[in-house]
Amino acid sequence: MPQFNDTELTAAVLESFEETPDPRVKFLMEELVKSLHAFVRKTDLTFGEWEYAIDFLTRVGQKCTPSRQEFILLSDVLGVSMLVDAVNHREREGATETTVLGPFYVGEHKAMPHGTDISPNLQGEKMFVQSRVTDLAGKPLANVPVDVWHADDDGYYDSQRPDYETSGPSSRARFITDEDGRISFRTILPCSYPIPTDGPVGQMILGVRRHPYRPAHVHFLVNAPGHEPLVTHVFIEGDKYIDSDVVFGVKEELISKIEKRTDANMPDGKPAGSTPWHLMTYNFRVRPGVGIAPKPMMAVTEDA
Amino acid sequence: MPQFNDTELTAAVLESFEETPDPRVKFLMEELVKSLHAFVRKTDLTFGEWEYAIDFLTRVGQKCTPSRQEFILLSDVLGVSMLVDAVNHREREGATETTVLGPFYVGEHKAMPHGTDISPNLQGEKMFVQSRVTDLAGKPLANVPVDVWHADDDGYYDSQRPDYETSGPSSRARFITDEDGRISFRTILPCSYPIPTDGPVGQMILGVRRHPYRPAHVHFLVNAPGHEPLVTHVFIEGDKYIDSDVVFGVKEELISKIEKRTDANMPDGKPAGSTPWHLMTYNFRVRPGVGIAPKPMMAVTEDA
Repeated sequence: MPQFNDTELTAAVLESFEETPDPRVKFLMEELVKSLHAFVRKTDLTFGEWEYAIDFLTRVGQKCTPSRQEFILLSDVLGVSMLVDAVNHREREGATETTVLGPFYVGEHKAMPHGTDISPNLQGEKMFVQSRVTDLAGKPLANVPVDVWHADDDGYYDSQRPDYETSGPSSRARFITDEDGRISFRTILPCSYPIPTDGPVGQMILGVRRHPYRPAHVHFLVNAPGHEPLVTHVFIEGDKYIDSDVVFGVKEELISKIEKRTDANMPDGKPAGSTPWHLMTYNFRVRPGVGIAPKPMMAVTEDA
Repeated sequence: MPQFNDTELTAAVLESFEETPDPRVKFLMEELVKSLHAFVRKTDLTFGEWEYAIDFLTRVGQKCTPSRQEFILLSDVLGVSMLVDAVNHREREGATETTVLGPFYVGEHKAMPHGTDISPNLQGEKMFVQSRVTDLAGKPLANVPVDVWHADDDGYYDSQRPDYETSGPSSRARFITDEDGRISFRTILPCSYPIPTDGPVGQMILGVRRHPYRPAHVHFLVNAPGHEPLVTHVFIEGDKYIDSDVVFGVKEELISKIEKRTDANMPDGKPAGSTPWHLMTYNFRVRPGVGIAPKPMMAVTEDA
């Protein structure tokens, strides 16, 4: 006959998962229950706090749209996204460090010729980016698709703009490595920007007196066949928020010293246009493996 | 300079809450982060599992409407709601045991005269319910509002019916205790019923091979001035699901032995109409205290 005090209750809930067909699902459910129950017991959570949590999670879910994923944002600001990245990449073996995909990846980008200006219509300081993709032994990898994307000078990604569907990509492209593993492109120097603060996650961040900023960075997704897909950012040294990224995504190895140049031509021999301009040089090392390149996670599934 | 491995990351996230103005909020955020991070680290959560969790939580949030709260359902089936109840009611001092409010409380009910049939238009076996409210010393408490509600013979609450707004309450009323602390009413014998299985929580329950049923019960909310509001159910002995309530709400003390009667009159001297009928007798003891009676938690707040 059931009669649960607070510890007996946990045992009963754990037992309810006995018939779970998949052992991994069973393990995850059991650990989830242990973890949630330990939290409630340790904090002596009040009814009012429980109600607040229910309402908060509901608002997070209802803020999600086909172009916004507030639960990923919640995971990000609690450091959970970076921790999932960390536990899945404990051994790098010399490969480039990883960081979060972020919510602004929109799937495979359109391939463009090397040297293309991917931000032709944007205000900002000009930047030339050059990179080389190699394996762990330093051997260049040819024909590797490299997706790049970054925020504009106002701190917005193209996909956040209301006219994104009609005006097409900006500061977003794919380059294919040449025989020497190299890519290059023109763009603008990105700036630091706040995560969206008009939803429950932003309100939470401001409520606990955290700032909402990410330090300036360029996203890279390097997807070499026969190698583990590399999801990372290159950060810009000296950024005001480099030590306090709101999503905890910075790793020292991923910080690039950007050079200020006054040469009339950029490294591909073509005119810089205006001077000075910036040069970002960052090379990627990928390690053997298989893996599915990440897909964007925006759409709410049909049974929602 | 930041460079987080999986353990350093947790420390950095905890430190980000340093400036939180309210010490209780700071404590809750820190414990939440410790708990979430420990879960990810212990399970070595994969990217695919993390994505599934993000999508699941999003679907739970998007299933919520002004008349449905899927996050409360999630809390219920993981035993979290009953645990919050347990840690807030560790010492009963002889007062009646508590259980979950559930998602079908709709706020203050309409007061009705003793003996009223609150389910006049429903199919089902007739039942007379009699109860008495006393303090811990057994002294009857007069003029105490007692809200009652239960499911119909098909397992639905009135508030789940599409025509609820126009047809008004059914199997739902308020009675005010008389000078001797007593209330009584006529209704039908409730039956066991499944929680909603057309949403992500129901799908999860079925996926782990749990049944979705709650054993038959009548909800009571006893709100005596100067006493702690009592939120509880009275369960019906012999129910098929009495040992496996999907929300873990059963407590032995709350199980009532229902008597089958063939008397022509019910205890208030008025005709039973048809026979046999059932008699539920259950008395409540409340303890001194203050407290705000629970409010229904359906509405999604405006900034959702």
